[in-house]
Amino acid sequence: MWSGGLTLDDVNNDHIHIVSISVFVAVLCLCIVIGHFLEENRWVNESITAILIGCITGTIILLWSKGKNSHILRFDQELFFIYLLPPIIFNAGFQVKKKQFFRNFLTIMLFGVVGVFVSSAIISTGSWWLFPKIGFAGLLVRDYLGIGTIFSSTDTVCTLQVLNQDETPLLYSLVFGEGVVNDATSVVLFNAVQKLDVSRLDVWAALYVLGDFFYLFLASTVLGAATGLLTAFALKSLYFGRHSTDREISLMGLMAYLSYMLAELLHLSGILTVFFCGIVMSHYAWYNVTENSRITTRHIFATMSYIAETFIFLYVGMDALDLEKWKMSKTSFKTSMGVCGTIILLIALGRAAFVFPLSALSNYMNRSSERTSITFKHQIIIWWAGLMRGAVSIALAFTQFTFSGLTQNPVDATMVTSTVIVVLFTTLVFGFLTKPLINVLLPHHAMENHHHQDPNSPNAELKLPLLNFEEHATTNFLRAESSLSMLIERPIYTIHFYWKKFDNTYMRPIFGGPS
Amino acid sequence: MWSGGLTLDDVNNDHIHIVSISVFVAVLCLCIVIGHFLEENRWVNESITAILIGCITGTIILLWSKGKNSHILRFDQELFFIYLLPPIIFNAGFQVKKKQFFRNFLTIMLFGVVGVFVSSAIISTGSWWLFPKIGFAGLLVRDYLGIGTIFSSTDTVCTLQVLNQDETPLLYSLVFGEGVVNDATSVVLFNAVQKLDVSRLDVWAALYVLGDFFYLFLASTVLGAATGLLTAFALKSLYFGRHSTDREISLMGLMAYLSYMLAELLHLSGILTVFFCGIVMSHYAWYNVTENSRITTRHIFATMSYIAETFIFLYVGMDALDLEKWKMSKTSFKTSMGVCGTIILLIALGRAAFVFPLSALSNYMNRSSERTSITFKHQIIIWWAGLMRGAVSIALAFTQFTFSGLTQNPVDATMVTSTVIVVLFTTLVFGFLTKPLINVLLPHHAMENHHHQDPNSPNAELKLPLLNFEEHATTNFLRAESSLSMLIERPIYTIHFYWKKFDNTYMRPIFGGPS
Repeated sequence: MWSGGLTLDDVNNDHIHIVSISVFVAVLCLCIVIGHFLEENRWVNESITAILIGCITGTIILLWSKGKNSHILRFDQELFFIYLLPPIIFNAGFQVKKKQFFRNFLTIMLFGVVGVFVSSAIISTGSWWLFPKIGFAGLLVRDYLGIGTIFSSTDTVCTLQVLNQDETPLLYSLVFGEGVVNDATSVVLFNAVQKLDVSRLDVWAALYVLGDFFYLFLASTVLGAATGLLTAFALKSLYFGRHSTDREISLMGLMAYLSYMLAELLHLSGILTVFFCGIVMSHYAWYNVTENSRITTRHIFATMSYIAETFIFLYVGMDALDLEKWKMSKTSFKTSMGVCGTIILLIALGRAAFVFPLSALSNYMNRSSERTSITFKHQIIIWWAGLMRGAVSIALAFTQFTFSGLTQNPVDATMVTSTVIVVLFTTLVFGFLTKPLINVLLPHHAMENHHHQDPNSPNAELKLPLLNFEEHATTNFLRAESSLSMLIERPIYTIHFYWKKFDNTYMRPIFGGPS
Repeated sequence: MWSGGLTLDDVNNDHIHIVSISVFVAVLCLCIVIGHFLEENRWVNESITAILIGCITGTIILLWSKGKNSHILRFDQELFFIYLLPPIIFNAGFQVKKKQFFRNFLTIMLFGVVGVFVSSAIISTGSWWLFPKIGFAGLLVRDYLGIGTIFSSTDTVCTLQVLNQDETPLLYSLVFGEGVVNDATSVVLFNAVQKLDVSRLDVWAALYVLGDFFYLFLASTVLGAATGLLTAFALKSLYFGRHSTDREISLMGLMAYLSYMLAELLHLSGILTVFFCGIVMSHYAWYNVTENSRITTRHIFATMSYIAETFIFLYVGMDALDLEKWKMSKTSFKTSMGVCGTIILLIALGRAAFVFPLSALSNYMNRSSERTSITFKHQIIIWWAGLMRGAVSIALAFTQFTFSGLTQNPVDATMVTSTVIVVLFTTLVFGFLTKPLINVLLPHHAMENHHHQDPNSPNAELKLPLLNFEEHATTNFLRAESSLSMLIERPIYTIHFYWKKFDNTYMRPIFGGPS
């Protein structure tokens, strides 16, 4: 057991602990090597590889231990939420192409926030209506609400590995942006629903959830931005690089982690906090450190995120063979499959219910801007990209239906195993089909979908995402005659314009930026 | 409690956990900032700062919790040996100036291996003889043997921060090398002593410990070198950088950690394994990765080691105020001070007993080489550098005298508190005197003891340690006429010469190296 404290059978436990870590690290290394070989083969991506290797390892351990157990580490929401998720989300914020992200901010928020509300409403009511019909009863109202948010968190890694961000920047930015915001929204909504008094569900309760949600969203964002700015200010005014690059790197990493922990401490959303902390750090703090620290932070945050992601997928694969849970769930095979099928159907339905209408809305809002509109083919890809379910779903399902990873209730056990099946099925089957689907929908794209990285200029990747931010903003807005009419017609662009002005005049001189 | 698994009072425990981590991370950030301000002021170094901040934080928590407890994290040998020590030792191996290290290999081994044997024999017998005389009884033979190894592990960080490695390369290399080898030796010897059958202590038992020690030493070294070579070979033949720098960095980090865990699994010395793994990786593997990965690995391993070190010192400071242990130890203040005084005296004596004779031996062995001999002033500095006791002593004391960090036995509690006092006293008092002492002994050195690092050429530090290795070896040995007479007169140089030949002809073409 990974985070198992020292218990009375200390020596023995210590040894098991060391065995677990060794096996896990060895398998992680194996994943890295195999992932490297499969890089050319874009049919199978790294998530699928990690899950499959996890399944194989699980089988071997199962045979080794003569059917006693399949996982060497018990899935632990704590491990997931305290150690694995923060680096992934922080890195997403740190590496995000800010230009695209902020240009499409409103659309991303529509998909990522409104989308989760729509999707979880549909999945909740759908499962509440359909589960008893296929012979699966025993869930409480709170559980149905939980199911809605659990299956509204998407996993867009598969799609992002196939999309080319230079050819279809808008599409890439939407899928990526929604992926991050969606994770945060599901977790925040999940927590808001948990606090709900289910005995009286009325309009006031719904409004309360909504209000709670917006409070969490805003407060978390402010906390993240404030921590990022504080770090940037400290790095700029003290100039740590004078003595030691180690201190700069430590401070950036530790402050980011502190922002996450503080948010959790204040019962806010750590995910959102650390995401915005990452954005602010890459926008200001990153410019205040030495060249070596810049290279190191870029790479090390990406590496940590990569390891954490592989770790999670590996674990999901391993956990699929957890016999205890399978035995505990007394539901028949038929009902089990019925539950999974229903959930997958509801996921597809719930996602269709917001992707197409919201895309139309976004196209309407951007009708007068230079932005290309979201074509129907793109809408299908966006819809598809969000059908995969990942580690966040599993972690939330464990939180909802188990107690420290264990459950005695057969209904709860069925829900946990169903979640694992849904995640495996969507990642493996839908993930496998992503490449062919995109090839059919974007045929030009198919021909040169490997984004070749010139091994001789590894610096290129470091400079691209951050530099051509300002030119774009200014050239676009010099044409603006009246700021008021602009605000009405192109609200995001106008906000963006004034933000750039403010940023250049006040923020950058204090907190640092490209000179 | 840091690594506390999920228990029944889960929610509450989770919250305490988050509070602990937040406070700890915040205090770590504070240490980094204060350490930066004190960099110019070389009287107080970073270890002392971290210990003092730990004490202050401990006092605040003590007052806050109304005298209930002073630490937010229970000291945990597992946390120390599984998570904090490996990055520190790996980094030591990775950044070691291999030229100096291997040139002085025999002397370093004399100090680091023979020295520990001498010192622990003196401390063991000394405490066995003196403790009952000052009214402290109740320890078993096994405990006295344990005490010998516990107080033989040195902490040379303080001295290394003051020494200038360009002015006194020999001295720096000896103090650094001994520090690393000594840590490993103490832990290996401690484990060897633990396995000893204390009921019959005779020459055979001593020989058995010695044999066990050499087996552990050799097997650990071979395992570390093998893992390093495997990594180098994988990186060279697969060329991961083609696709992703993240994979290269992950693989280096994970393989290093795997070597440590494998050694622990096979009951070898993880410290030695990961140290040699670090040396081999920086000698071969490091040349097989992209430029960005080189910069990133150099800096990130140093940063991780820096954070782990600060963490440990901070913890030691916080633990000093653990009231439980103070109450448990029923020994009078006078006896307590007597025990600590005796230990400190024995440490000084035990160290003097090997530093001066072994220095003379080393000078005799190197009489015909160009190496400058170890002057008496240098000998005093080497003696002084090893008087400080650090985290390894505390971790070993916890292993010997507590059970999962708790103890019910007053005698054991006294030994734990005494160890904490000895570590605090030696680090604070001796550490504080290090700078003045070196100023007196090496007056030239005192004038320019800040090793200035040009902020404009941060690359310099990366290239220096690795490049001028071969020229030196070859120029020295072209003069050699007969290899046999050389082997007798200058054994280390000869071995070095043949090793370089072998390395250039066979190893580097397979495993990579500077081109």
